[in-house]
Amino acid sequence: MLQRISRFIDTMPLADNGIKIDAALISSQTNRLYFSGFKSSDGLVFILRGQAYLLVDFRYYELALKTVSGLKVVLVDTFSETLKSLIRHHKINGILLENESLTLKKADLFQKIFESVGATEIRNDTLDNIILDMRKIKTPDEIKRIGNAQKISELSFNYILTKIKNGARECDLALDLEFFMRKNGATCVAFDLIVISGKNTSMPHGVPTMKQIEDGDFITIDMGAVFEGYNSDMTRTVALGHVSDKQKSVYNTVLQAQMLTLSNVKAGVSCYELDKIARDVIDKSPYKGTFGHALGHGVGLEVHEIPVISLKNEELLEDSMVITVEPGIYLKNEFGVRIEDMVVVEKNGCHNLTNISKDLIIL
Amino acid sequence: MLQRISRFIDTMPLADNGIKIDAALISSQTNRLYFSGFKSSDGLVFILRGQAYLLVDFRYYELALKTVSGLKVVLVDTFSETLKSLIRHHKINGILLENESLTLKKADLFQKIFESVGATEIRNDTLDNIILDMRKIKTPDEIKRIGNAQKISELSFNYILTKIKNGARECDLALDLEFFMRKNGATCVAFDLIVISGKNTSMPHGVPTMKQIEDGDFITIDMGAVFEGYNSDMTRTVALGHVSDKQKSVYNTVLQAQMLTLSNVKAGVSCYELDKIARDVIDKSPYKGTFGHALGHGVGLEVHEIPVISLKNEELLEDSMVITVEPGIYLKNEFGVRIEDMVVVEKNGCHNLTNISKDLIIL
Repeated sequence: MLQRISRFIDTMPLADNGIKIDAALISSQTNRLYFSGFKSSDGLVFILRGQAYLLVDFRYYELALKTVSGLKVVLVDTFSETLKSLIRHHKINGILLENESLTLKKADLFQKIFESVGATEIRNDTLDNIILDMRKIKTPDEIKRIGNAQKISELSFNYILTKIKNGARECDLALDLEFFMRKNGATCVAFDLIVISGKNTSMPHGVPTMKQIEDGDFITIDMGAVFEGYNSDMTRTVALGHVSDKQKSVYNTVLQAQMLTLSNVKAGVSCYELDKIARDVIDKSPYKGTFGHALGHGVGLEVHEIPVISLKNEELLEDSMVITVEPGIYLKNEFGVRIEDMVVVEKNGCHNLTNISKDLIIL
Repeated sequence: MLQRISRFIDTMPLADNGIKIDAALISSQTNRLYFSGFKSSDGLVFILRGQAYLLVDFRYYELALKTVSGLKVVLVDTFSETLKSLIRHHKINGILLENESLTLKKADLFQKIFESVGATEIRNDTLDNIILDMRKIKTPDEIKRIGNAQKISELSFNYILTKIKNGARECDLALDLEFFMRKNGATCVAFDLIVISGKNTSMPHGVPTMKQIEDGDFITIDMGAVFEGYNSDMTRTVALGHVSDKQKSVYNTVLQAQMLTLSNVKAGVSCYELDKIARDVIDKSPYKGTFGHALGHGVGLEVHEIPVISLKNEELLEDSMVITVEPGIYLKNEFGVRIEDMVVVEKNGCHNLTNISKDLIIL
């Protein structure tokens, strides 16, 4: 953690609008976990130029003291009093606040605390941007955790395939899948799992319904696990009984788009280019214009992180980013197909963390 | 919904700091649901003095149009353009924003939109307070939904009792319980379910661990379901095999505190008084000072709502509030007991929504 904090301090700007920046106050659960390695429902990470603190209450103090390194663990009675005393002690001026997760109510509370001891809060996206830029490049340890989350998904995917039968309801399969994942090591699921079938697969973010699976249906399963704080994400579309020529043709088009895109992933390629490779395959097929979402996104402590892999993003991929590649074709009132892998960007290519076949599975 | 919106408009102040208040913009999922009756992951409720709007995108438009009454449903391409055009059209000045759930990032976004068409956002707790005050008094329909959520909990509680055996792990029981609830109609659980045993019961908010249940353990089960948007909340402490005299004595003290408190619940009693009745029973027993949390809280669209039933709150209970009454005794490194019912406050008493015996169950 010490290295992560040092790198953060090096990146912290000196001033904002004439206010000298001496500290950053991090309250979101995800960013606290990122800098402290310590998971708690409540707490604060307070990073000064010469020292970083983890403030926790009695519920977490003992465990934090034992397990946290690189930050000084402080037991707080009330967060406001501890903050005031640290601000006074270190003669702190400007304090960066988070922006994307901090509520107005909490920001106002911090403002009052700071004002009472002569400090000033800085409300803009500086802090969030620094942290997101750090978080988008994964360490080997982070990649290992993401890979382990993915392993739980794969075990569970293979399990749920055995439960997909004529008459099984989407919602029951989704629930069954979630519980299998949690019984097999997932802290929780990364998002509300998607198990949809037939016409419902034509909606990219369809929600499992009471619909029963029928012979000839495509079934799209979009799933992710959380393990040791890190997320995984994978989608497969399978079929029950038999498929039509059109279903086969759509499936193969998506697969071709996905495989070509994967073979082009490497550091230095732009998000725009990558999205365009997949989109071009689909737009040159009979299914032009049916790929109605972005190609992918970063994955880490959150299941959707930067970079967004879309036509709107000119950002270049970097070594050790973990991203999804998930093209799809969605034919309204007919069916849809999406195939999603999660890969680690490398200098000369990528390492695919997904180990589930992409040949069309007909159950 | 029309009645709810009219009541809200009647309560909206005329001005704030010299700014004329013409509208309120509601973005939190819970408050949107409260005013529109429509559940969606995204959307806005925009209440003007003469008209209320529900803004949704293409994913929700058709369903909203069919099911929402009292608000004009507007299909948006981008929320910002629709907001701008409504603000221009109605010549709106000040707009109240939420405070407790709205992030700085979203507030800044709204501010930019408003400024571009000459309107001003009002960032304080006015809007939240109006809504929370409305939400704390439940309608018969809301009480019915809370009661139905509780029925799911009770069915599931009786189920999990059959699974509590020597060697069963806390975490497996918690997962099993959640799965049963969701299979039996719960949209989701109201909070991470608590199933803890033995020494772990001495922590009011203990988390299920790998610990196996043993003969002689107390097992505390704190559980809640969500049904049609509304939450339930209940706690029972049961025993496995046998109990010591001390366990019996603690259990009976908590039960006595809870029963006496329940018999005092009615409109006009203050939250302070109610907490004190339970606390006095415990503090006059050999277990003085071991009831380390507040007596209870409101329940509704959120599982923790106002009023907080604590010594710090002088607020009076009102007819049709739904609150919990949950005293406990926690003996560090030994064990703990909590008994929690959820009741509807009435003019001359209360209606208990919890129908599970409070006699000590020894499995």
